[in-house]
Amino acid sequence: MTELTLAQANTIIEAAFAKASELKLKPLSVAVLDAGGHLKAFQKQDGSSMLRFEIASGKAYGALAVGAGSRWLNTTAGERPHFVQALSAMSGGKIVPVPGGVLIRDEAGAILGAVGISGDTSDNDETAAAAGIEAAGFTADKG
Amino acid sequence: MTELTLAQANTIIEAAFAKASELKLKPLSVAVLDAGGHLKAFQKQDGSSMLRFEIASGKAYGALAVGAGSRWLNTTAGERPHFVQALSAMSGGKIVPVPGGVLIRDEAGAILGAVGISGDTSDNDETAAAAGIEAAGFTADKG
Amino acid sequence: MTELTLAQANTIIEAAFAKASELKLKPLSVAVLDAGGHLKAFQKQDGSSMLRFEIASGKAYGALAVGAGSRWLNTTAGERPHFVQALSAMSGGKIVPVPGGVLIRDEAGAILGAVGISGDTSDNDETAAAAGIEAAGFTADKG
Amino acid sequence: MTELTLAQANTIIEAAFAKASELKLKPLSVAVLDAGGHLKAFQKQDGSSMLRFEIASGKAYGALAVGAGSRWLNTTAGERPHFVQALSAMSGGKIVPVPGGVLIRDEAGAILGAVGISGDTSDNDETAAAAGIEAAGFTADKG
Repeated sequence: MTELTLAQANTIIEAAFAKASELKLKPLSVAVLDAGGHLKAFQKQDGSSMLRFEIASGKAYGALAVGAGSRWLNTTAGERPHFVQALSAMSGGKIVPVPGGVLIRDEAGAILGAVGISGDTSDNDETAAAAGIEAAGFTADKG
Repeated sequence: MTELTLAQANTIIEAAFAKASELKLKPLSVAVLDAGGHLKAFQKQDGSSMLRFEIASGKAYGALAVGAGSRWLNTTAGERPHFVQALSAMSGGKIVPVPGGVLIRDEAGAILGAVGISGDTSDNDETAAAAGIEAAGFTADKG
Repeated sequence: MTELTLAQANTIIEAAFAKASELKLKPLSVAVLDAGGHLKAFQKQDGSSMLRFEIASGKAYGALAVGAGSRWLNTTAGERPHFVQALSAMSGGKIVPVPGGVLIRDEAGAILGAVGISGDTSDNDETAAAAGIEAAGFTADKG
Repeated sequence: MTELTLAQANTIIEAAFAKASELKLKPLSVAVLDAGGHLKAFQKQDGSSMLRFEIASGKAYGALAVGAGSRWLNTTAGERPHFVQALSAMSGGKIVPVPGGVLIRDEAGAILGAVGISGDTSDNDETAAAAGIEAAGFTADKG
């Protein structure tokens, strides 16, 4: 596994913002976590509300937790709410189970980290995250 | 962005109490938080029950967290309960997702803080909060 | 025991601010807790830093915890640090063991609540708290 | 008070990295928090160890908590360890009381946020933080 670099993380954030600008999304917060779930880079656009860092990184953390984009957690929350509640409690509340947390995979399929975005609708957050990941040359796994 | 002053926060509380008196509401607890979610002023009327500070400030904190009055959280809790549960867990239980948490916006739309009220019905709590905010010359964003 | 009223709590805060103004203290945060340790009233002067509510109320909470002004906790922290550390852990971090948390006693000696102040030196914080309590006609117990 | 913008926060981080490169410091993690203690921007250089985000932001958070650079907390920890321990417990462990957390002040002296850096010695971390703040046209308050 190659490790995600800061340069790549910054590229992902810039490209996510560019996609958001193109789609005229609301101000976003974008978190990039490494494969160990630790924050590599983060930027909050002006006007993005108070707890958006926690929400954005919680989507990315959740994706890494189960090895699937946070859309999978969103679906699972409908089918087996007790499982998602247990994940939340188990992690000390670090998991946010809605779309917008997308895994960063290399060409061999290895997980290099995850991107979490919050600020617009969950679907749009996810679109921006995937655009960022692909702009950096990786594969976006939405779950 | 102008910072919310103590004089303004006190005006908001007094005006909220005046509206509550006019509407013959039950004893209220009124919390005013700054834009960063930190308590600026609080008053609990005699007879307002034990945990009303936590409830009132939790409504205001929730509003600031997502940049919308806590009525939005109340609606979202019905549609996507797992998201609101995650917000609650993520914030260490600091978010109370029912009406009565109202954003304080200036004329440019910037968020200066939030008012949270608890003690009567959520709808009446919200009415008193909005009255307080408007009496201080700001715009009340109920969500 | 008579219960502390909101009017009395507000009088205490105003008188503490008056004393602070007279002594030219830095911007203060003043918390008034009832006998059960629940917040009755709070005001943060403009310029008082971010976590001053938590510090001020932690002094008052500590005073109520052991039935002595928080100066007693400060002294005890020097003599028996393990006891004060245990109080802190036991209370979930709600106790701040430095001067500035002063008990509000009625003429029979009953505890009606406590005032906690933070912003200037601990000694000056305590002086302002005692002045507030006495202005409301109560006895200040500094510990 | 002007609100800290994302552009300014990014400038601060770039300038801190430039100073670190000039001084040949170890890989750094740099967190920029807004005045309310919420993360605005963060970058972790390749090779900076696992919990550096938490350490860097804890220095900045501590500075904001008491309205002084985290060097003040470091000194106070020697003189009144029980106070700093209480701050740590009270904040849920969010405060790291060593140098490297520096307040961002505007020309009127208002606090716009704080920068926290971790990775090299505390003194060098602080030097890089101050360089970043000054490069963005603000005043660095080391405490």
